[in-house]
Amino acid sequence: MAIESVVHKVGLLGGGVIGGGWAARFALNGIDVQIFDPDPQAQRKLDDVLANARRAVRKLVMPALPPEGTVTFVATPELAATGTDFVQESAPERLELKVELLRRASTAAGADVVIASSTSGLLPSRLQAEMNHPNRLVVGHPFNPVYLLPLVEVCGGSQTSEAALDRAGVIYESLGMRALRITKEIDGFVADRLLEALWREALWLVNDGVATVSEIDDAIRFGAGLRWSFMGTFLTYRIAGGESGMRHFMEQFGPALQWPWSKLTDVPELTDELVDRLVAQSDDQANGATIRELEALRDDCLIAVIQGLRTVGYGAGEVLDRYEQQLFDRTEIDSAAIDIAQPIRIYERSVPTEWVDYNGHMNDSRYLQLSSEAGDRFLRFIGMDGAYLASQRSFFTVESHVHYIAQCRAGDRLYVTVQLLAHDSKRLRFMTIMCRGDDDTVVASAEHMMLHIDTSIDRVSATDPVIIAKLDEIAVFHRALEPPKQTGHGLGPLP
Amino acid sequence: MAIESVVHKVGLLGGGVIGGGWAARFALNGIDVQIFDPDPQAQRKLDDVLANARRAVRKLVMPALPPEGTVTFVATPELAATGTDFVQESAPERLELKVELLRRASTAAGADVVIASSTSGLLPSRLQAEMNHPNRLVVGHPFNPVYLLPLVEVCGGSQTSEAALDRAGVIYESLGMRALRITKEIDGFVADRLLEALWREALWLVNDGVATVSEIDDAIRFGAGLRWSFMGTFLTYRIAGGESGMRHFMEQFGPALQWPWSKLTDVPELTDELVDRLVAQSDDQANGATIRELEALRDDCLIAVIQGLRTVGYGAGEVLDRYEQQLFDRTEIDSAAIDIAQPIRIYERSVPTEWVDYNGHMNDSRYLQLSSEAGDRFLRFIGMDGAYLASQRSFFTVESHVHYIAQCRAGDRLYVTVQLLAHDSKRLRFMTIMCRGDDDTVVASAEHMMLHIDTSIDRVSATDPVIIAKLDEIAVFHRALEPPKQTGHGLGPLP
Repeated sequence: MAIESVVHKVGLLGGGVIGGGWAARFALNGIDVQIFDPDPQAQRKLDDVLANARRAVRKLVMPALPPEGTVTFVATPELAATGTDFVQESAPERLELKVELLRRASTAAGADVVIASSTSGLLPSRLQAEMNHPNRLVVGHPFNPVYLLPLVEVCGGSQTSEAALDRAGVIYESLGMRALRITKEIDGFVADRLLEALWREALWLVNDGVATVSEIDDAIRFGAGLRWSFMGTFLTYRIAGGESGMRHFMEQFGPALQWPWSKLTDVPELTDELVDRLVAQSDDQANGATIRELEALRDDCLIAVIQGLRTVGYGAGEVLDRYEQQLFDRTEIDSAAIDIAQPIRIYERSVPTEWVDYNGHMNDSRYLQLSSEAGDRFLRFIGMDGAYLASQRSFFTVESHVHYIAQCRAGDRLYVTVQLLAHDSKRLRFMTIMCRGDDDTVVASAEHMMLHIDTSIDRVSATDPVIIAKLDEIAVFHRALEPPKQTGHGLGPLP
Repeated sequence: MAIESVVHKVGLLGGGVIGGGWAARFALNGIDVQIFDPDPQAQRKLDDVLANARRAVRKLVMPALPPEGTVTFVATPELAATGTDFVQESAPERLELKVELLRRASTAAGADVVIASSTSGLLPSRLQAEMNHPNRLVVGHPFNPVYLLPLVEVCGGSQTSEAALDRAGVIYESLGMRALRITKEIDGFVADRLLEALWREALWLVNDGVATVSEIDDAIRFGAGLRWSFMGTFLTYRIAGGESGMRHFMEQFGPALQWPWSKLTDVPELTDELVDRLVAQSDDQANGATIRELEALRDDCLIAVIQGLRTVGYGAGEVLDRYEQQLFDRTEIDSAAIDIAQPIRIYERSVPTEWVDYNGHMNDSRYLQLSSEAGDRFLRFIGMDGAYLASQRSFFTVESHVHYIAQCRAGDRLYVTVQLLAHDSKRLRFMTIMCRGDDDTVVASAEHMMLHIDTSIDRVSATDPVIIAKLDEIAVFHRALEPPKQTGHGLGPLP
């Protein structure tokens, strides 16, 4: 399937934070863009957004992106719309300004070219009022940053055709977005009503001196915000209702709606009809999934999100990081207690879900990851700490040989021993043996050759004598042991 | 540092969804738990929560957890509190019920034992009214699932001591949580006021027939919800304000507060004083970070969260998955067009941030991951598709040898070629060469030996003749090529 066939050239009205984000999303999908924006700083601002977007989207997606589309500034809204097969308006939220821009663009765009507005909450029926062919006006309301967030609300006005709404949906989805059709036109649509409700409550909390902006943000990002990244409030509450689901939840928390738990005390009456509707829609949403299944899905998503944030070291990821450090400290290698007369049991961890591949077992590359993590611990044990790295010295691996011996499953506890095989001032060679904690089955081995590197010039250099002394101390014992049978093994000549 | 020193035994009042979550969080941290819950189903419900929590927490954290604490049911609130060094109440949200439970527990717990309530919004001053030593009552309001979500709001009543609040914070943080101190006691505290505001607005949307529960959830989880998993509304809006920050944002979107974009139209007046306070607090929160830095942080977190969700295949992760499939389809190997006379350029991808380690370059194990991903593509190319796997046949790797040749950085585009070295009915040996896309520098090689496996019995078996025929066809050319110089290499005998 060819994404490029959906649209080839788009016109943008406005190139600010939102318009620039659109420009990036289109261009990075190989689509040419022409922009009208009267701001004298527009080009510079757009270049900044494009630079951010290029960096981010290339990091986000694994496959290669198509060749980037061109981005050209033009002098009028008419020129922006000319010769395009889609137009997106992202001007400031002033009705008369948007109406005029859309009118002008509609005189220049082909009659069947869909024209979308990024408005956060103005009604499409009013936006299309002055247009040629108003039936092709849709709201396509995105979220910042447009080049990363998938959501776009798609909503028509009284004159909008179904065909225009469908076409906008197809175009947005071809860009990697999630088009959410809003069937009833209201101020603020759906997403912004929810955001605005939370925002207004938050402003009251600051106004009343209850909490600071930072505390309010923390109250979201360490709690419900983590759930909201993959499940909305309704599905979350269905799960919270436990085995009896949504009806039970409404019975249990319905009374709280009457309590002053938000500034909005004008709440809908929980009539039987409304509760029935909530329950029926919630059943549809769950689509037969049991509470246990939904709990497992919720938990897997939370784990994935928090572990993802751990790689950035921010928010809940930072909390996890600190917690794991506490746990490591409890099981930290006590250097004095280590018996260096034997292969050193240096590391243990469990197999996370994402290490399992289509064969249902731990992917081959994860054995090397496990061995590499154990190797890092061994390096720390022999003295390669943060200060050593800061002095621009490190060990780089030059060869690894892995033998895969037994399969591992998600949740298996594994431990790793390290046996020093050889070292001199510049080289370090050791073998890791990976074992299952339950029964000490050997699941894999990996032999590594490392070089000591001066990282300021990326050249081989002499290891610090303190580390050499530690290695010498270990070698007295480890060289006296039988080398593991995998030592030195290669696959040998071709048959 | 020893986590176990913080608390050893806790008493829980209530073992439902929240109380059970607390039981899990304490027990998995090695702390013994005694629970009072009059529900005859309590034990079964708790076992379910514990099973969920064990699975989830073991997946979440990398280090080994301490030996699990015991969980014992007791007959009265007094018995639950006896001999503990912390008590947590999680009964239904009925003031008189909670007051009575807390009173009874307070008669049995030591005078300096902190007693916490999980209430979502009842005031601590009222909860502590009947207690012995009411100064040690705190609210410790967690979020479901308690065993995964870090947030706990900590709030005292009029009689609560600073020491009790501090102690609760220390205990919660030792469990891997994030304690947020709420300094001003109000109904709903901070988090639930925000949740409740959004929830009430959402109920109106269903009530008014604007959207279904599923559409409302989608409006969150594909958009703002992704941001809320790491940044709250205020920091997000500061970024949206662009270079001029929070003041600009308030100027631009302030008028919208007067518009009917939510049911709550009673909004705080944006006086100079309030705007100044918002701006000052937002400046504090940003702590000197520029908008560009905050944008990069936001984007990195979004990427991490969406990529995390991709591993679960849910929400925004599913959207990304589908989008990547579109991109892959554009660059998919056209089997007919492949020149098998040369090493087959089978795969390309960019280096994601999380592949980079403390040396600032791609971690050694990730080269094998790249090679393994390329190997999977090669297997698909020779005919190992989903149907083949479903017939319980697959290739398992038994040995890999990696040569690390050049360093790679985040964002580098890499491609991989595969050269078939040898095969027979049960074995498959090939070499991958990994190259940088910019300049064709070879960055690594990996030689793999695989065995064909009957996965129903995990034994070596014969490869399907169709695959053998494809391999024979490739081998005619690849065996005529010079084998890569790394072929067959091992580290050899010890010096």
